[in-house]
Amino acid sequence: MVAKKRGLWLVGARGGVAATVAVGLAELARAGSEAATVGLVTESPLLAGPDFPSWNQEAPWSSWVLGGHEVRAGTLLEAARELERQNGALPVGLADRHATTLDAIDRRIRPGVRFRSGTAIDALTPGSPTSSATPRALVEQIKADLIAFRESNQLDQVVVAILSSTEPPTPADTLPTTWDQLNPLLDRAESCPLRASSLYALAAIESGMPLINFTPSLGASCAALEERAVACGTPLAGRDGKTGETLLKSVLAPMFAKRALRVESWVGHNLLGNRDGAVLADPDNKRSKIDSKDALLARLLGYAPQSLVSIEPIASLGDWKTAWDHVHFRGFLGVPMTLQFTWQGCDSALAAPLVLDLARLITLAEERGEAGPINALAAFFKSPQGAVSDDFGVQFERLRAWVSGLERSSVP
Amino acid sequence: MVAKKRGLWLVGARGGVAATVAVGLAELARAGSEAATVGLVTESPLLAGPDFPSWNQEAPWSSWVLGGHEVRAGTLLEAARELERQNGALPVGLADRHATTLDAIDRRIRPGVRFRSGTAIDALTPGSPTSSATPRALVEQIKADLIAFRESNQLDQVVVAILSSTEPPTPADTLPTTWDQLNPLLDRAESCPLRASSLYALAAIESGMPLINFTPSLGASCAALEERAVACGTPLAGRDGKTGETLLKSVLAPMFAKRALRVESWVGHNLLGNRDGAVLADPDNKRSKIDSKDALLARLLGYAPQSLVSIEPIASLGDWKTAWDHVHFRGFLGVPMTLQFTWQGCDSALAAPLVLDLARLITLAEERGEAGPINALAAFFKSPQGAVSDDFGVQFERLRAWVSGLERSSVP
Amino acid sequence: MVAKKRGLWLVGARGGVAATVAVGLAELARAGSEAATVGLVTESPLLAGPDFPSWNQEAPWSSWVLGGHEVRAGTLLEAARELERQNGALPVGLADRHATTLDAIDRRIRPGVRFRSGTAIDALTPGSPTSSATPRALVEQIKADLIAFRESNQLDQVVVAILSSTEPPTPADTLPTTWDQLNPLLDRAESCPLRASSLYALAAIESGMPLINFTPSLGASCAALEERAVACGTPLAGRDGKTGETLLKSVLAPMFAKRALRVESWVGHNLLGNRDGAVLADPDNKRSKIDSKDALLARLLGYAPQSLVSIEPIASLGDWKTAWDHVHFRGFLGVPMTLQFTWQGCDSALAAPLVLDLARLITLAEERGEAGPINALAAFFKSPQGAVSDDFGVQFERLRAWVSGLERSSVP
Amino acid sequence: MVAKKRGLWLVGARGGVAATVAVGLAELARAGSEAATVGLVTESPLLAGPDFPSWNQEAPWSSWVLGGHEVRAGTLLEAARELERQNGALPVGLADRHATTLDAIDRRIRPGVRFRSGTAIDALTPGSPTSSATPRALVEQIKADLIAFRESNQLDQVVVAILSSTEPPTPADTLPTTWDQLNPLLDRAESCPLRASSLYALAAIESGMPLINFTPSLGASCAALEERAVACGTPLAGRDGKTGETLLKSVLAPMFAKRALRVESWVGHNLLGNRDGAVLADPDNKRSKIDSKDALLARLLGYAPQSLVSIEPIASLGDWKTAWDHVHFRGFLGVPMTLQFTWQGCDSALAAPLVLDLARLITLAEERGEAGPINALAAFFKSPQGAVSDDFGVQFERLRAWVSGLERSSVP
Repeated sequence: MVAKKRGLWLVGARGGVAATVAVGLAELARAGSEAATVGLVTESPLLAGPDFPSWNQEAPWSSWVLGGHEVRAGTLLEAARELERQNGALPVGLADRHATTLDAIDRRIRPGVRFRSGTAIDALTPGSPTSSATPRALVEQIKADLIAFRESNQLDQVVVAILSSTEPPTPADTLPTTWDQLNPLLDRAESCPLRASSLYALAAIESGMPLINFTPSLGASCAALEERAVACGTPLAGRDGKTGETLLKSVLAPMFAKRALRVESWVGHNLLGNRDGAVLADPDNKRSKIDSKDALLARLLGYAPQSLVSIEPIASLGDWKTAWDHVHFRGFLGVPMTLQFTWQGCDSALAAPLVLDLARLITLAEERGEAGPINALAAFFKSPQGAVSDDFGVQFERLRAWVSGLERSSVP
Repeated sequence: MVAKKRGLWLVGARGGVAATVAVGLAELARAGSEAATVGLVTESPLLAGPDFPSWNQEAPWSSWVLGGHEVRAGTLLEAARELERQNGALPVGLADRHATTLDAIDRRIRPGVRFRSGTAIDALTPGSPTSSATPRALVEQIKADLIAFRESNQLDQVVVAILSSTEPPTPADTLPTTWDQLNPLLDRAESCPLRASSLYALAAIESGMPLINFTPSLGASCAALEERAVACGTPLAGRDGKTGETLLKSVLAPMFAKRALRVESWVGHNLLGNRDGAVLADPDNKRSKIDSKDALLARLLGYAPQSLVSIEPIASLGDWKTAWDHVHFRGFLGVPMTLQFTWQGCDSALAAPLVLDLARLITLAEERGEAGPINALAAFFKSPQGAVSDDFGVQFERLRAWVSGLERSSVP
Repeated sequence: MVAKKRGLWLVGARGGVAATVAVGLAELARAGSEAATVGLVTESPLLAGPDFPSWNQEAPWSSWVLGGHEVRAGTLLEAARELERQNGALPVGLADRHATTLDAIDRRIRPGVRFRSGTAIDALTPGSPTSSATPRALVEQIKADLIAFRESNQLDQVVVAILSSTEPPTPADTLPTTWDQLNPLLDRAESCPLRASSLYALAAIESGMPLINFTPSLGASCAALEERAVACGTPLAGRDGKTGETLLKSVLAPMFAKRALRVESWVGHNLLGNRDGAVLADPDNKRSKIDSKDALLARLLGYAPQSLVSIEPIASLGDWKTAWDHVHFRGFLGVPMTLQFTWQGCDSALAAPLVLDLARLITLAEERGEAGPINALAAFFKSPQGAVSDDFGVQFERLRAWVSGLERSSVP
Repeated sequence: MVAKKRGLWLVGARGGVAATVAVGLAELARAGSEAATVGLVTESPLLAGPDFPSWNQEAPWSSWVLGGHEVRAGTLLEAARELERQNGALPVGLADRHATTLDAIDRRIRPGVRFRSGTAIDALTPGSPTSSATPRALVEQIKADLIAFRESNQLDQVVVAILSSTEPPTPADTLPTTWDQLNPLLDRAESCPLRASSLYALAAIESGMPLINFTPSLGASCAALEERAVACGTPLAGRDGKTGETLLKSVLAPMFAKRALRVESWVGHNLLGNRDGAVLADPDNKRSKIDSKDALLARLLGYAPQSLVSIEPIASLGDWKTAWDHVHFRGFLGVPMTLQFTWQGCDSALAAPLVLDLARLITLAEERGEAGPINALAAFFKSPQGAVSDDFGVQFERLRAWVSGLERSSVP
């Protein structure tokens, strides 16, 4: 069997997660790097065995080609070195080891589009002109880049992953609910409710390239675009990668429920200092992230305790996110008790392997002819599209069954 | 339908857990006490619905009668008041509200037996003579107490629950593996490897009374006694109630495994100040508890990280157990990260509702004709007898399926 | 020597702190209550010896009489019972033991005044009419109450302590800086910048009764009122009792400075659930508290790290304040390190003994003829009036030297 | 004025602390490295001003020459690179930047002596022969190395700093209390109670070179050697550098005392993974360290709460020490409260600047003609020789007064 050649197109191609994806993929292609597989779900014994895909034969990591869009200046190598200096967000020496590879990727990165991305994101690219093009023209421009990437690299499959900074939320009631309603708005910049993330999503959908939205931005998470994805036969995975505090919530809240312990309050404070943190200092963008984090709890517990989630940009922490959660709960006869946890995780190193896993998994969906939201991938997201359960344990069992081919992910 | 009348016999009938069971049962029988159902799994929406038993019709909490064995002096009311004074381990006023009920239970408590229970437990009952009776004679004495309890209270079913202080461990290689080998040793005190907890267990087994062993002591957790239980048609549930730190381990360790994060070390320190803590100050008894806590991790992760578990008696904490766990793990490319948690729980208030749940659930096993270790009850224990998985989420799904009648608990 | 008879007048006389002061004073007057002296600085060995006042001979706790103002309804006994039920904020049984005493105090409590106290405080007393009296008339009304208290109880000295809920901040630039400028404004309700706390303060000052302001509200913390206090010969102690997180800051920040460790960021989150918490949910009132907490850090370190302080009302925590602080600092060669702490303290139990200490100590100032801000009492406050240092260790040495008579507290 | 030329002789010259001292000193000598002064007390504004020594004029960091003894193989550059790889215990790139300097120091490192150092330290140097020389012969060998260092580098002053791994404790009752009793034992290896650290100390003392003992090993901390130091005119500073958890204890315990809060229990768990951790896995050596950590508390509080200190070697943490402390205390009326802290510090980066500070400060003592234990340096140590107070704040004030010349450090 000849291994397929696959492409992964990163929107936000010089951010921390993208840089880690790039360095990690280079390490994975190198022989004998055991540390590189840590954090890769598709490499774990839990998804291995005769019933599971032979990833490394059909599409080894070395067969993946990277490209992407980026609105910021700089190089991928600079981004990787910055992570190294940030207290080991990337192990010492890896950036330089793969400098040539990073350089090659850099040459495949194309200028990104900005469209209603919010003032905080605009501030990252001072002086950069805002296009006066219509949304549709921007979508076509993106599609041209995607197709050029596929053709010039002779790729069998291309996956698009949105990794860019969080946009402000888009109120649900401003969104048309069908493709027929949305379609004409693409020609009118002033009345189109979509932001850049959704334009990228639409370009991927219409190019038949599976889409991963790892950010809290809207992307394809609305009825009209899901409808469009089904029509185009494109699988979707999103949104908002579940990497840290929310992952813990999605295993701890079910524990409280299954022990019938009554959660009175759940307070979560998140400190982080990377570019994501800076963008989240903008109250608008923060809102998207917090909404995504907070809604989960009531669904998991079956009732809404007093809850509070904050995200605070603390510059000196760099890529290290520190979350403190305080859970006040009652046991038998109403006796009050407390659980606190502190999570100190490196955001890029947590996100990057999940992006690689999703790239592999969503090609599986494509090969099986599944389209629209792939709910079997819910375990990876804070606000999973089409999810059946918010309990991480249940989501994982669903993932295993789907990967092994026991279950299909229903097309809506 | 006439509700059954059931008895719950507590070994260690004046300890903190027993006192909380007694007060809690009295509260549950009282109308309108909503707080009393917190922490009761069998009262949660997750085990409710048309497929599930109608506990409150068939055997409401008010139909349960309590009795028990105890080696210590004092009264149940005193034990309950002590909990109240310990920073609200029992809400203020409950002990006095149910003083009459507690008094009635006290009159049904019989002197317990001591047999190789260890010097720390002996120290709790200074001056009390050690019986020179054979193990078999002690078993018969216990059986007589159990049967008298059933008859004098006209009970349809009696469940025996071991809640007494932790005994020293019994080395596995000193235990006969069949009933035929064990049986003759019961006549020879000097060569019988069993300790008191196993004599209570045997008495329950031979009386056909379902057994719950909520402690780390051996009880019926050995092949010979499990064989005897099957022969006598008695269901068994054990051992070592999973109430705090270990419960968290059994949801968090699977999370790390399912994200392919590599746990390098897991350190857990447990501080507690109740009588259990004092008994655990004895290195022998502590060993039992720590063995039970530590083995779990390697089973859950699939490899053994460096691990360390300590239990330390801190007198001033009373019934409030504080556990601090520090998990050092690696993500993608070997990047090191940390999770810490602090659990501040009240041991009695966590254990008592689970004992009540198990009492209900094991009568279900009896009614269905299941005998020996009921592995569907694994979710309740640190070292479950006959368990299929150590993952709490998986254990809970198994519990639900079994309670709803979809699955049986296999007889070995 | 005949012991003096002293009165302590509490503004906010049925709040949690006041109820704890009342119960605690009753316990202290009872023989053999060792636990009652815990937390009393004036009872500690550090302020005992031949050079220090013989408090218990000159003015034993049993010689103090309580009274106060209150805007809310209810009784002191109810307030004390509420604390008992809140997880042992008051030990079980104390409220009832001293019910008669609490009842007697209740009869000495007079209706408080409200003046520009903010909507959150107004909400605590629904339906209560807002007076249309001038500020001066309100001051006179308060003075009448204070003097009636002194005379009807034949008191040698009366101390006034402000314990009421936090008011919104008063911008410094709205405050006249001399008494001559402030004085005429007291006749014009609409242009008087003071709030109720300052009216109480003025009444105490003009009555020659030493004033303690244990709250973040303005009280006498402005130049015009300090001038008035000096003129009237009245000593002042304020403001904002240093009971928990800030106390820790005032010992930890100096530690970083004295080790030349560079604090990059200091984030503090405070959760609390009592009435104070509810009032602080109002952004205006919260501002007062946070300003008081935050300014300290730069003064202690000599530079301003990124800092963030939040106060969040979490109803279920009751009187138990939980603070989590995360300090990110750099050591040699810029190596980043972290200190986190969690403080779980009971606000009333921390504040009440300090109020009693301050009552004793400020009578000492009065007897020594000191007036205006007594800077030797800085160790007790977050925003000490006239303080020399913010380092708790230094403040405490100053306190000892002053109490022993080695130093005077300078009149400005 | 011509700057003096000074030597610093490190016992344990290729350990983590020594490597950090070496790299740090090289950075300090480089222009414009601001980060290098972080953590240096002698560079802080608190010890600057007209009354304080002009360190940078009289003996700038560039005038210091390093040498030392080491029993282990390897190079200083390797030791430095190992720290870099350990999660940034040394910033990336520094080891290589100063490779030439490190190499030069390496050539000045002489083989160390081993004498009753304990099996754990012996295990670090497998195959290395144990000398059969008498203690006196070893002392003379060390002195020869020290003098050769001074002469060949033309140094005005040499300071000796013990940084080697912790030895097992030496029972106080085996130590002679006068020099006359100790002296003859140096000729009899079999009856001499001293270990290697004390032989190094004696060599320094008799060479008139000021001694710093930064470890918990005995060094010169006994009456006989202190007597010898006074006779030889050599100043001593020791023992056991106060870098992390104990530093916090020495500011927090005084806080509890000064608020009259009653500490019921204080539990401290220390996890660390460097070579020090491995040596401390040996129960004998651990004992030295724990004794040093634990005794402090009772002295600071004035009574002994239940306390527990553990040190646990957790390999994966490398040089990062994590300490969790849990303090259970009571406030007014006996209300129980809790303070917990987690300290995540890099041991080498905390210790190294203090070693440099001590080197500077002890030359000051020498210049002032002070000899024996210099109690003004107590702020730097867990078990300070000749200390007046254990309160860090008080110790620091003493240090300032001494450095500025206001006070002398008394010769015993």
